Amino acid sequence: MGTIGDLGEFALIGRLTRRLPQGPAVRLGPGDDAAVVAAPDGRVVATTDLLVEGRHFRRDWSGPYDIGRKAAAQNLADVVAMGARPTALLVGFAAPPGTGVEWAERLYDGLADECRVAGASVAGGDVVGAPEVALAVTALGDLGGAAPLTRSGGRPGDVVAVRGRLGFASAGLALLAAGRDGPAELIAAHRRPEPPYTAGDEARAHGATALLDVSDGLVQDLGHIAEAGGVRIEVDSAAVPVPEILGPDGLRHALTGGEDHGFAATFPESAALPPSWRTIGRVVEGTGVRVDGRDPPAGAWDHFPV
Amino acid sequence: MGTIGDLGEFALIGRLTRRLPQGPAVRLGPGDDAAVVAAPDGRVVATTDLLVEGRHFRRDWSGPYDIGRKAAAQNLADVVAMGARPTALLVGFAAPPGTGVEWAERLYDGLADECRVAGASVAGGDVVGAPEVALAVTALGDLGGAAPLTRSGGRPGDVVAVRGRLGFASAGLALLAAGRDGPAELIAAHRRPEPPYTAGDEARAHGATALLDVSDGLVQDLGHIAEAGGVRIEVDSAAVPVPEILGPDGLRHALTGGEDHGFAATFPESAALPPSWRTIGRVVEGTGVRVDGRDPPAGAWDHFPV
Repeated sequence: MGTIGDLGEFALIGRLTRRLPQGPAVRLGPGDDAAVVAAPDGRVVATTDLLVEGRHFRRDWSGPYDIGRKAAAQNLADVVAMGARPTALLVGFAAPPGTGVEWAERLYDGLADECRVAGASVAGGDVVGAPEVALAVTALGDLGGAAPLTRSGGRPGDVVAVRGRLGFASAGLALLAAGRDGPAELIAAHRRPEPPYTAGDEARAHGATALLDVSDGLVQDLGHIAEAGGVRIEVDSAAVPVPEILGPDGLRHALTGGEDHGFAATFPESAALPPSWRTIGRVVEGTGVRVDGRDPPAGAWDHFPV
Repeated sequence: MGTIGDLGEFALIGRLTRRLPQGPAVRLGPGDDAAVVAAPDGRVVATTDLLVEGRHFRRDWSGPYDIGRKAAAQNLADVVAMGARPTALLVGFAAPPGTGVEWAERLYDGLADECRVAGASVAGGDVVGAPEVALAVTALGDLGGAAPLTRSGGRPGDVVAVRGRLGFASAGLALLAAGRDGPAELIAAHRRPEPPYTAGDEARAHGATALLDVSDGLVQDLGHIAEAGGVRIEVDSAAVPVPEILGPDGLRHALTGGEDHGFAATFPESAALPPSWRTIGRVVEGTGVRVDGRDPPAGAWDHFPV
């Protein structure tokens, strides 16, 4: 089917755009200087992530469709983590000219399909030549008249609860790094996170005082809630969901593994949480995060390691 | 002052964020899962560009401050080209861990200053490690209740007019490529475009039927107006502003040079345009762009050249 360099920028944009169904929030989709997206609330929630080959994904470990799903998911989850509903994605796509057109098309299929799951669509973007593949994804969302659910609202006495998988993506990555090809469920979790996109609405319905998506590891991300709220988070490790499939390092994966894009929230103690939310700790006076009363294990990641 | 790798992701974000004044449109700035930006119109204009080192800028040809100004300018101009007013920028910043902290700070100073010129501010973003510097810039804007000024509204009988510099950035780039260091005005134009951000309001006030920013070269970008509107654009080369400083290749630079981020628009023939807008041609039945009745010169760029 040829390479994107053979096709050229404008023909490539045309090919990719044809694969992007536009949802009702998109008032003007790809093809002009900018997109126009509905923001009925009068405010727009907006977040952006830059994903770089070799750092955030490897083309030998993940196919283009899964890379697209994952790139979309992590940004859509950030919108949901504000208590908003995703409306649209903008995608900047950098790739070597020798990249196959079919590879690019599968990438955009993944972006479009993940958007559909979250109720959004890919409304615009940019394609450029570069030595490595990179994806710049911006997600937009609408608050529907409600206040944003920030990281700062956790108060002493609140409970801490999580929704969605923890440690699966990290365990899957460890398997790939060790050259193993199973358990398939873990490797699939690394390749394609499944953020529970209803978590924002659920958290709001149950009076959440703070909400974020777990992208860098539970302990590290709870640290953001602690810091933003000026409180301490105490985690009871026995309450953290650690399915047997995570293996002997399961608790470590669940506490420090990133990229599952589940959600963590604080709720008033009186909240009657549904079983999909697991209470794992509480908010107290103080600073930082404690696990079983001690300093948490190291291992949370940093985008600029030595 | 050290490198961004020594500093680490979160400390770097803190350092950079402190340099970003927040304008009135930003309801929630950097530090949470997403920003919240005012969209009083009930719609938001959104555009994204990915800029890659060695392709869109060279660190030996442009300093960090100018790279920041230019990256912001090209996206802010896209918002203005919809007839909207810029409100906020989101910036994804990829860089090698050995990049100096001061270099990054100057980059963000440039982003912030260009935003201020356009009435916007940097409301959020992302930093990641990568082999090369890359910038993913998303700009948001508000239409203030008006219809977007798209590329498709040019009608036979309309006049074609331009606002802002043409060919300056291209001529400056040619000088740098030839190892020359002047004329300084041209080299400065390559490093830091100066989009006339009032052009959107002006175009709307004079009844523009189509508007875009000239990013890839006048002839190529007029081709987008021709294609989107199903019309032909006829350019009179003698009417195209070609200041003497552009040198012997001035007309070629003005017709095919990109990155000045001036604006081109179509207006009803009756429009009484101010002198800052220069009428350079007209819209007729047909397809494509003609310069003095002939096919235009080649030389417009493509992001995936051979």
